[in-house]
Amino acid sequence: MAGRSSGRGVLEKALGVLDAFEGRRDGLRLAELARHSGLPVTTVRRLAADLVNRQVLERLPDRRYVVGRRLWQLGLLARVQGGLRDVALPFLQDLYEATRENVHLAVRDGLQALYLERLYGRTSVPLVSRPGGRLPLHATGVGKVLLAHAPEDVIASVVASAEKVTPYTITEPGRLLRELAEVRRRGYARTVQEMTLGTCSVAVPVLDASGAVVASIGLVLATRRDPGRHLAALRVAAAGISRTQH
Amino acid sequence: MAGRSSGRGVLEKALGVLDAFEGRRDGLRLAELARHSGLPVTTVRRLAADLVNRQVLERLPDRRYVVGRRLWQLGLLARVQGGLRDVALPFLQDLYEATRENVHLAVRDGLQALYLERLYGRTSVPLVSRPGGRLPLHATGVGKVLLAHAPEDVIASVVASAEKVTPYTITEPGRLLRELAEVRRRGYARTVQEMTLGTCSVAVPVLDASGAVVASIGLVLATRRDPGRHLAALRVAAAGISRTQH
Repeated sequence: MAGRSSGRGVLEKALGVLDAFEGRRDGLRLAELARHSGLPVTTVRRLAADLVNRQVLERLPDRRYVVGRRLWQLGLLARVQGGLRDVALPFLQDLYEATRENVHLAVRDGLQALYLERLYGRTSVPLVSRPGGRLPLHATGVGKVLLAHAPEDVIASVVASAEKVTPYTITEPGRLLRELAEVRRRGYARTVQEMTLGTCSVAVPVLDASGAVVASIGLVLATRRDPGRHLAALRVAAAGISRTQH
Repeated sequence: MAGRSSGRGVLEKALGVLDAFEGRRDGLRLAELARHSGLPVTTVRRLAADLVNRQVLERLPDRRYVVGRRLWQLGLLARVQGGLRDVALPFLQDLYEATRENVHLAVRDGLQALYLERLYGRTSVPLVSRPGGRLPLHATGVGKVLLAHAPEDVIASVVASAEKVTPYTITEPGRLLRELAEVRRRGYARTVQEMTLGTCSVAVPVLDASGAVVASIGLVLATRRDPGRHLAALRVAAAGISRTQH
């Protein structure tokens, strides 16, 4: 590993600068970019100028930096989760069509739910979830499905550190563990206002050929609507996606 | 710019390696990666190993490299075309719901059409287009709309170099120019089997506050169906997106 420190340093710094945009898609000023990436302003200024030249970053007229078109294009070349997102998309589209609610596809990434896709229309309730984003496993429908089928040490870690996102988030260890057992038993998860006030959710597992849970799909809707009536549609879509994993 | 050559070199090489995956999402072996990026195998091996460590690339069990999850996540932080994709998405979803055909959102990027979004379901006709991908301006519906409203030098370049994608692609300069004038006059473009055999398309412009064409939305369907009957839905969606640009 010796003798490559300069090169590896630049890649690492560049990725650090890009990581700083997580949760800050509206852009960052130079000083903010330095603070969030933990690099000196002079280093960030030089690196950012280089990344702007290569269209990896873009600089807006008000001098804020945003992630640029080239990185977006490169990112779309990824085979996310072995192509799961691509094969799932038509089924998710069917599900959106049948329900007109927010449709989510998520996988577990460590102790969080990673959202691979979100479909929604103008009548769907506004949400914080977005493709590529992460949310807590214990507070969302898809998260509870993924957590219920996670290894025991993951369940233990999440349960021990679960925090309230809203006043309704279930965090009491005994209650959360009983709920996860229930999710495994009945084959779906439901939440009411645990992540976003005014919304509820229902989610089911996506299985691979061995019957292991590899992902979860779910719907998020306004609390005045009944998520239960969409359970059949959700199960049909999950079965369709699961079949492609055989 | 002197004194930073080593660092700039690494970034440039890394981007060159990533660019090699364009059109090759199924993965590349080491030798292919070297050939397509124009770098020596030893350089690519070292760089690829570094990128795999950082989850920018992923190595499959059969030793092919694919673009990894981290790059996908970073790319999704981009504000593509000033947020156009984000504001357009619900309108595109409505359009899909009304038609169940392939829905495209594209902008002009130099002499090509850059696809920002594609929505489709299990009943939509299969296509080569994908978000982040590019297609010729002269051979697609959205491309003809964008070309018709491009600067004169762009039109001249594209018309002079237009190649047949299928036997039906219109490339004869006089005929293509007359067609573009027609697209401007009637406010929409239609194609039949010019890009993909068995499909036809219809597309309309998306305008900014000044009335300039900033994007195009279009539908692609099987030739046995009538694209004309979706023109009204397409225009309503385009008007909705255009309004957000004011």
